[in-house]
Amino acid sequence: MLFFTQCFGAVLDLIHLRFQHYKAKRVFSAAGQLVCVVNPTHSLKYAPTRCAAAQASTEQGILPPCHHHEAVHDPQLVPCMCPLFSCPWEGHLEVVVSHLRQTHRINILQGAEIVFLATDMHLPAPTDWIIMHSCLGHQFLLVLRKQEKYEGHPQFFATMMLIGTPTQANNFTYRLELNRNQRRLKWEATPRSILECVDSVISDGDCLVLNTSLAQLFSDNGSLAIGIAITTSKVHSSEAEM
Amino acid sequence: MLFFTQCFGAVLDLIHLRFQHYKAKRVFSAAGQLVCVVNPTHSLKYAPTRCAAAQASTEQGILPPCHHHEAVHDPQLVPCMCPLFSCPWEGHLEVVVSHLRQTHRINILQGAEIVFLATDMHLPAPTDWIIMHSCLGHQFLLVLRKQEKYEGHPQFFATMMLIGTPTQANNFTYRLELNRNQRRLKWEATPRSILECVDSVISDGDCLVLNTSLAQLFSDNGSLAIGIAITTSKVHSSEAEM
Repeated sequence: MLFFTQCFGAVLDLIHLRFQHYKAKRVFSAAGQLVCVVNPTHSLKYAPTRCAAAQASTEQGILPPCHHHEAVHDPQLVPCMCPLFSCPWEGHLEVVVSHLRQTHRINILQGAEIVFLATDMHLPAPTDWIIMHSCLGHQFLLVLRKQEKYEGHPQFFATMMLIGTPTQANNFTYRLELNRNQRRLKWEATPRSILECVDSVISDGDCLVLNTSLAQLFSDNGSLAIGIAITTSKVHSSEAEM
Repeated sequence: MLFFTQCFGAVLDLIHLRFQHYKAKRVFSAAGQLVCVVNPTHSLKYAPTRCAAAQASTEQGILPPCHHHEAVHDPQLVPCMCPLFSCPWEGHLEVVVSHLRQTHRINILQGAEIVFLATDMHLPAPTDWIIMHSCLGHQFLLVLRKQEKYEGHPQFFATMMLIGTPTQANNFTYRLELNRNQRRLKWEATPRSILECVDSVISDGDCLVLNTSLAQLFSDNGSLAIGIAITTSKVHSSEAEM
């Protein structure tokens, strides 16, 4: 009986170690902050009609009707807004998170402040690094994209989208921070709603923008660490102080 | 006698009002901070040899020998580093400030924190906005430049240079901050020495870089307000925290 108990204990330890090893591969703690290693994914572009339709619907205050699908069953359905894939999925806003986790294997991290460590920054554009961040009772999507707005000159664009409505998004402020080599760059803004198109946020340049040379100054061994913090949007009340 | 005294008083008042009016044209106070209105100047480029010579000498730890001049009288002399003009002046580091003020009419402002308000952001590249900032016993030169690194796509580059040696520059940290429309962008770095070439700092992209779209988001009625603060360089000791 003792033998079986010991065997069972050993099996449990092995499972625990295996789980710890798996966690360590993607998440580790540095100086008390949660660091998430995010691997790149080669970006597949949206069909322009999809993006335009979603954008127009959001501006009118209604949910996007998914014109790219042959039949629209329900105007309350949201198409998959994951910028990585031309995904035919559509569903209610409440199930977007589970769709992104289960179908696109996007990690979700808890915590007020996390560090997003994007690997392989040298990969050619277009490339995306994506993670979900659960904070203050909501889920956010962080997108870092390497893209050539001007041919032959790739740039990095980082933004945060709320998995919620534009009205809900207005209640928050997100901060992205780069800190290395005696240089610090901080970007603070109100997150956009996931119902708006990430492509248009990036093409408008209304996000953190890094030239390749600046990205190299902030990166370490091909990886770029971005500190992320989300707060309620009282921070901007100090705008008038400047 | 009373008449002459009154006349003299009136003349003094007029002089004072005229001075106040002149000051108000370029400097006004907003929310307790000193705001300096800086008008643009169309940029005249350095001869490449001048820049390269200065850069090479600085890297070797000696003062630039001004190879662009026909005769070099003293290796301790510094050429005029003002990025606006192809100026033939040269002199010791200690007299650079008075040269910039007197010959190039660059304003100098006192105070730990000031706001640099660059006007006419729409003007075509290349354009420079320049001011001197006196703080912590030293003088700094702030340069904002509109330049086309990629043809047809002007960008804004902002950096701060110490009017002193690279060793002295390492003792300071400067912060540039943009804050408008619920967005905030901060850049913190060690200032470069004025003995290094501002052109190379900008071409390396080792400064605050803004795309035109982002500059428009932060500007108000064609003017861009940049908050400036200088501290001793202990700020970066928190780098390891991230």
